[in-house]
Order: sequence, then C-alpha cells, then structure tokens
Amino acid sequence: MDTKPTAGYSATVRIEYPNTVGMLGKVTSAIGMAGGDLGSIDIVSIDRNLITRDINFYAAGTEHIHQIIKEIKKIPHITIKQVTDRIFAVHHGGKIETKIKYPINNRDDLSLVYTPGVARVCREIHENPRHVYNYTIKGNTIAIVTDGTAVLGLGEMGPLAALPVMEGKAMLFKEFAGINAFPICLDTKDPDEIVSIVKNISPVFGGINLEDISAPRCFEIEERLREELDIPVFHDDQHGTAVVVLAALYNALKIVKKDLGEIKITVSGAGAAGIACVKLLISAGANPKKIIIADNRGIIYEGRPDGMDKYKQELAAITNPKKVTGTIHDAVEGADVFLGVSVGGLLTRKDIIKMAKNPIVFALANPVPEISPEEAQPYARVVATGRSDYPNQINNVLCFPGFFRGLLNARVRRVTREMEIAAAQALASLIKPDELNEDYIIPSVLDRRVQLAVARAVERVAREEW
Amino acid sequence: MDTKPTAGYSATVRIEYPNTVGMLGKVTSAIGMAGGDLGSIDIVSIDRNLITRDINFYAAGTEHIHQIIKEIKKIPHITIKQVTDRIFAVHHGGKIETKIKYPINNRDDLSLVYTPGVARVCREIHENPRHVYNYTIKGNTIAIVTDGTAVLGLGEMGPLAALPVMEGKAMLFKEFAGINAFPICLDTKDPDEIVSIVKNISPVFGGINLEDISAPRCFEIEERLREELDIPVFHDDQHGTAVVVLAALYNALKIVKKDLGEIKITVSGAGAAGIACVKLLISAGANPKKIIIADNRGIIYEGRPDGMDKYKQELAAITNPKKVTGTIHDAVEGADVFLGVSVGGLLTRKDIIKMAKNPIVFALANPVPEISPEEAQPYARVVATGRSDYPNQINNVLCFPGFFRGLLNARVRRVTREMEIAAAQALASLIKPDELNEDYIIPSVLDRRVQLAVARAVERVAREEW
Repeated sequence: MDTKPTAGYSATVRIEYPNTVGMLGKVTSAIGMAGGDLGSIDIVSIDRNLITRDINFYAAGTEHIHQIIKEIKKIPHITIKQVTDRIFAVHHGGKIETKIKYPINNRDDLSLVYTPGVARVCREIHENPRHVYNYTIKGNTIAIVTDGTAVLGLGEMGPLAALPVMEGKAMLFKEFAGINAFPICLDTKDPDEIVSIVKNISPVFGGINLEDISAPRCFEIEERLREELDIPVFHDDQHGTAVVVLAALYNALKIVKKDLGEIKITVSGAGAAGIACVKLLISAGANPKKIIIADNRGIIYEGRPDGMDKYKQELAAITNPKKVTGTIHDAVEGADVFLGVSVGGLLTRKDIIKMAKNPIVFALANPVPEISPEEAQPYARVVATGRSDYPNQINNVLCFPGFFRGLLNARVRRVTREMEIAAAQALASLIKPDELNEDYIIPSVLDRRVQLAVARAVERVAREEW
Repeated sequence: MDTKPTAGYSATVRIEYPNTVGMLGKVTSAIGMAGGDLGSIDIVSIDRNLITRDINFYAAGTEHIHQIIKEIKKIPHITIKQVTDRIFAVHHGGKIETKIKYPINNRDDLSLVYTPGVARVCREIHENPRHVYNYTIKGNTIAIVTDGTAVLGLGEMGPLAALPVMEGKAMLFKEFAGINAFPICLDTKDPDEIVSIVKNISPVFGGINLEDISAPRCFEIEERLREELDIPVFHDDQHGTAVVVLAALYNALKIVKKDLGEIKITVSGAGAAGIACVKLLISAGANPKKIIIADNRGIIYEGRPDGMDKYKQELAAITNPKKVTGTIHDAVEGADVFLGVSVGGLLTRKDIIKMAKNPIVFALANPVPEISPEEAQPYARVVATGRSDYPNQINNVLCFPGFFRGLLNARVRRVTREMEIAAAQALASLIKPDELNEDYIIPSVLDRRVQLAVARAVERVAREEW
C-alpha cells in the first residue's frame, strides 16, 4: 500500500530534447513504466531545434524518484537539466509569513500605525483591557504550541523538526478559517515549564492549539492551562480527532441502524487520541460498560499492574466491567465498532470476522492503518482511515479550523464537551440521508461547507452556555 | 508645541448637506478656524438634493477633535452622520496578519504543505538541524519580545496594552526590511522567567528583538540571552537608539569640525538608551574621561551613594574622572554635545549658552524634548529631536529593520559593537558632503536607501568576523 505514488513524493524534472516527433511520449512512457504517476507538463522554451520542458511526476518514495530519473536518463537524446523535489521546493524559506494590513508610505502612515498615534491605543487598552480584542490581532490570532515530542507518526522530533508541521497547520487555519495562527515550538519538555510559558505568552493570543505533545503529558498540560487561562485551550490531537471520529460514527451507525448507546466499541490505542475519543464517545451517549480499550500491553482493565497512568486508570474504572484481559485480538470479539488510533498492521481479516454483524472499522493509524481497507472491506460494512487515498478520510482538518473560528467568534473562554458534540453533529449532518453510504460517511476536507458548519455549531453552544 | 495638529489625532467626519454652492467651504473653514488641519475630502454619494462627503482632518488631541466637530455641527443644514477616529479605525482587528505562501485548493496541495509530504521535511531537519533555516520560516522571522514595562514614553502599560506598539514595530520590520516579525508580549516581569521563556521559544526565530523592557532589567536580560542563545539578540531601545545617535553625531561633528575623541559629551538619562549610547560612543572613540552622565538624581559619579545600579557604576568608574557633582545644569557647562534621552522640558536657553562653542544638542525625549528646538536653535549649532515635525529626527526605525536584515542575511549568532559602529557609519555616509547641513544630519526614515545601507554594513562586518 505504501508503494502507491503520492504528491508527498513529487518531483519536477527539466528536460531538453530535439524538437522531433515522439520524444515527449518516450519520456511519459518511461515514467509510467517505472511506476510513476504523471503530473503536469509545462513548456519552458521551444525553438526549431530544441524543446525544454518541466515534467512533474509522483513517486512512491525518494528512492523511487531516483529510479524514475534513471529511466528517463536512458532515453537517447534527452538531457536532464535539473530535478526539483517539489516537497522541499515548496518548503524553501517556510510556508507562512507576516503581512501588514496597511502600507507605510509617508509620515502620516507612520503616525497612524506607530508613534505617536499608537500611544492612544495603548492607553485605551490599558484602561479597558477587554478592548485588546478590538484593537489588536488577539481576537483572531492563536498559537500552535508544540514541544515536538509526538510529531505526526514520527515520534519525538524536537522543536526544530516540528516547525514545518506547525507551519502547515498555520496554513490550514488561515486557508480554511481565516485565522492567524503562529507556531510556537518549545525547547523544553517539562510540563511545568510548558504551562508557565504558554500562560506567559498568552496575552497576544485569543486561543491556544496544543499540538503533537506526547501522552500522558498532554492531558496534564491541557488541564492545567484550561484552569489557568481565560482563553480557550484545545489539544487538537485529542479533541480534533475525537470530534471527527464521533461525526463519522454518527453516520456509520445510521447505515448499520445501530444505536450509540447500545453498541460494543473496541478501541486500540490509549494515547492522546484514544483517551479523548473514548471520553467524547461516552459524553455523547456511548455506554462505557460496552467499551474495551487496548494499548501496546494489551487490554486495559482496572487494576492492571503495568503500563498504566492516571488517565488510563480513570477510564479503566468505568470501562471493561468484566475485566476482560488479553490482546486486541481478544478485544475485537463481538465488537460493533473497532476504532484504531494506534499502529499499522495490527489486525487481519480474522479479527474483522470475529466482530459483530455489520462491523464498523475505523483504522486511523497513519500512514499504515491498523488493517488495510483492501483486507477489511470484504468483511466490514463501513471502513474509514486517516488516508486521503481511500474513501472516508477521518482527518482533524475537518474540525480544528472551524472549531477555533467558532471559539474566537464567540470569544469563548473554555471549550466544553457540548461544543465538541455539536461540532460532530454538524459535521455528520452535512451528508444528507440520500447521499449517505458506506463510502461516504464524512465530508471531504476540501468541502467548503465544513468549517462554517463546525464554527456555527460551536458558536451556538457558546452563546447558549453564556 | 503639543498643540500642533498631527496624524496621531486624525478623524474622518461624514457629513450630509444640501447640494448648494458654498456648503463645503463653510465646513473646511470651520475646521481651519477651530485650529484643525484639513486632510483628504472624499465624496460618498451625490444627487440633485443631497451630498454626502467624508472629510478628514488632523487635530492636536482628542478634546480638539470634539471641539472641531462641535464647530461643524453649528453650521446650518449640515448633518453629521458619523465620526471616525482614524487611529482606532486603523487599529481595528490589529495591524498584521499571517499570510500563506501557497493556496490549498486540492489534495495535492494538502499533501505538499501538510501530511504526508511534510514528514519528509521534518526528518530532514531532524537529521540536519541547520536545515531548519532552509525549509522553515526561521531564517526570516524574529520575535519582538516585551514585558510591557517601558512602553514608548508611557511607562509600564502591561503586555496587553503593549501589543499595538509591537504590531506597529512588526509592520516596520516587514515594510522596510521584508522581515517576518511576531509580537511576544509576556505576562511576567521576572528576568529569570523572561530569559527562560525566550530561550524556550527561540527554535522558531532567527533573531530576538527585545523591546520596551525597563532598565536596568533590560541589560541583564539581554546579556543573559546573548550568552545562552545561538541567534542574535538586540534590545532596540538600547542599540537602535545608540546607532542612530552615533550616526547623527558623526555628521554633526563634520559640521562643527570637531573630533569625536576630543569632545566633551553630557548625557541626560541613564536608562536603556542612555547607557547604550555612552557605551557605543566610547567604543566608537569618544573619550570616557570627557563624558558626564546625569540621571533624575543628578550627575553620576563613582561612589554616588544613591540611585546607582551595576550598569551606572560600571560607567561611573570610567566617566566623570573629576567626580563633578550637581544637576544636569552643572553638567552641560562647557559641553560640546548635549545628548538627552530623559524627560521633556529639562533645559532652557541658559543651559545651551553655557555649552562650548558651536554646541550640538540632541534632545530626544518624546513627545516633549529636553529643550524645544525653537528655544535651543538660536544658541545651538545643530539640534536634533525624536520628533518627525522638526528637522533631524533621530528615530530607531533608521536602524532596526536594516540591522536585523543584515543579521539574518549573514546568519549572525551574536551582535557585536563593530556591527553597530559600521551601521552608524553607513547611515551617516548616506548624506553626501555637499548635502550635509545643520538641518540635515540624518536621513529621513522614509529614505529607502537607509535599510539596505545598514543591512550591508552589518553583513560586511559579520562576514569579516566569521
């Protein structure tokens, strides 16, 4: 499954060749024969003798890019002028920048936006601190805070290597919800320090998005920040995932005609996403007595002697009442829903066969799911993954931009479960009953209705709770 | 002097009046008679009966805006529809925002800038940390860090009220030097915490501009950060001021044909700017034995029992060798240069008369200088202030954007005195010998050659020191 060409491994090769018939075809064939997917083809220059073109193709990995280039090189009369790796080209110099709202062309401009005019605005905010929301960026600006301890599926990468992800996230906040998001990558892993830093830098921000912070530290950090700050704090790896999972589950349950309060749910993974999903599912009406959670040491039960922490214990106390033990393969027995937020390649078809009738499988490990859709599909009624190249992509980006849009619009001080449930319902209901089917339980990340629907749901709850 | 209308108090009034001859004249006359300066006049709508216009004017203060509006109201047949204070209008929602470099229109875009493509960039930086400069915003992004303890001339305003100034500064960095600057307003005044926070947030930034942090805390904070960080740290209130003062002094000395090493310099103010100016002047060749510094407790001398700190003591040990005591009025006796970075209205003409022949007066307190140019001019050969409405404006913006441009271009790890002196020389030499005169010793802040000249000077020194 990993050998499919993707835009993640995309290169542009600049070639020069004699202006004779059939040359381009040889190049595109070579790319195809080598397993690459052809992208755009641009002309750079052309004259009677020579043509120069930029040919873009997708590969399955870095090595594959090199193989494809090697095949192109073999074609007689072709000169390769340059090969550009598109990923690195796009990242050159970073992906975001600051923009000023007014140009500064003369002394008047300077007096308005800087001294002496700005002094009046300072005094105004000094006297009425809430006016900081009117006259500064605070009301539409959030921090994306990470310590680089759990970056994507890569694990601990440190604050520098985490920055490209945070910039990408900042782009999504801007593109999908018009929010100014700025990356804060912390050179400390100490929860006390992280809490103290975020508190102390909070004056500039209207909200804090915690990102890629490893569990269980992330729970404590978020809890403490929520206690101590008067702006909303949202750990996306937890709640963004949970909201989208709940939305997808709402729709999957409509297809199999089962009720959230009745179903047996098996969860693989007790990290940030796993814990948050279970908590939100319970808040939304799932019966904790019918939930079993497993982690890398097997099924979690109250009193398990090893690999526990405060947060697992909390859930062990209310789930798995029969104290079932064993592995994930035992846990899926009779389950209506398998929710995987753990590691790739965990299950086989045998596990799906053991599940209840019309099983729902959310295999969200990325890039390799707990079970491949190809293997699960024949036995499962509904399959969802975290990948964009299969139907039903469960992706946080369906939630976080709109969720923060709603939080900022309503100047929410604290995120509540009700907001998360409302967001999930709003997301789910974007798919109309007559559109709903096994391959379409969750809208596309590019569906432009998504963010507004989520934002409105959050705002509505916020105003009700006011 | 404070009653001159400025863009700092600028309003736009929307008026509606019958479409008959002479009405507009009555309005503009009323503004002029009330002491306002007329700005732009725009038409909003017009028909046979009614005209609606936006009329912009400058006033000398908030109260003055109200007076002018009152005068306009008195004109028969004029209806005031709306009054907009331009300063607050410009600040609405803040003055900067984030901008994304690439739109996200489809799944390919998403794969390139976010997952899965971004994972390759993370791994690359994880393996080669210096590549963070190539593939993220770090190389062209700085933090503007304040704790709000010494905001403009307003004193301690706190982190929220400081934000509009930091946003304004961020605009100047972008507009004049293409640098992404982001405001970090800290909710702590503890130097230990500030140092620790700046260290811990530094991964995202290529440089740190400290701003509006009160003395003497600012010295310790900067020193410690310079020790501990591998990116340049520059407290603009200190060094930005010092560089521009030195540049202006270079040119003023050319006019009076005196030598920096020979002159007697009296400095009023021993805060961030005062201390930094004295240090840079000495590094540039001024004779410390001919420098006298005074603060709000009078002349500083070695062993003065009160109002001293480590930084004043350090300078007291090398300046004022005769241990002259007294007030600033004693200190100016026989001085070739008066440098005021203190408070308004400190000196009178009598003080200037006491100075040496061809005295140079830099009265930089803002908005009210230590002595008004009107009062100093008849006796001083060269007068400079911090104000834009007099000749010779000594403004930090002549330094900091270009200075950081140079630091970032050369990936400087540590700012040196040599860079500051080179920047001052570059600034000074933008004024050609035949242009130089008493009213033109320093370029305009809008002179677009300024930032490039400063940047190149910093870069040149950085590469020599490499």
